[in-house]
Amino acid sequence: MAKNLEITILLDFYGEMLTSKQREFLDFYYNEDLSLAEIAANVGITRQGVRDAIKRAECLLYDMEQRLGLVARFKDVQNGLDEIMDCATKISAENRKNGLSREISDLTVKIKSIALSLSE
Amino acid sequence: MAKNLEITILLDFYGEMLTSKQREFLDFYYNEDLSLAEIAANVGITRQGVRDAIKRAECLLYDMEQRLGLVARFKDVQNGLDEIMDCATKISAENRKNGLSREISDLTVKIKSIALSLSE
Repeated sequence: MAKNLEITILLDFYGEMLTSKQREFLDFYYNEDLSLAEIAANVGITRQGVRDAIKRAECLLYDMEQRLGLVARFKDVQNGLDEIMDCATKISAENRKNGLSREISDLTVKIKSIALSLSE
Repeated sequence: MAKNLEITILLDFYGEMLTSKQREFLDFYYNEDLSLAEIAANVGITRQGVRDAIKRAECLLYDMEQRLGLVARFKDVQNGLDEIMDCATKISAENRKNGLSREISDLTVKIKSIALSLSE
């Protein structure tokens, strides 16, 4: 069972739709990086039981993304914000080259700071 | 039972987690603007049955937003994109005032077009 990094972002988006038990198992496995055996020892069930519970919870997360597509929607936004930051950097450089308008400089800083604050 | 405009955006985000029946009722009621009596006549159940089904589906949508908060998250992004477009417009005006760099002009157009394409 390979650990899937995508799961952590799905957990961030949709985790609250899982039971607290399911969230706990995924959190142990993905965020705390415990092994199945360690989780089994912690919670007092079999390794196979932990494995099944994690698989089931992962399926629920994948199913939600397949239905709702909100992680994909956010990724598009993130890519767009990256492009916007890149444009703002270029404006700033071009502005510095051409006689330096203080106002343009301030506005590019503001664009970058907004884009950065939305990129979490 | 007042029609709630917020429901249409919740339906857009989370509708795929409802049953097709629930989606159909909410779609009739909110998007097609049919009355409870009209929906009841269409689907062959009582007006009270339609009303209960719609209430239940609305509760599910509100519950999902309370858990996941993804509509709120997207609204923050939309507000930030509006601010970015506003800054780009100001840069463009300032740039025009100060000797007109073609490159800055093109870059502000690009920022606005990216921000607009993400604002759906």
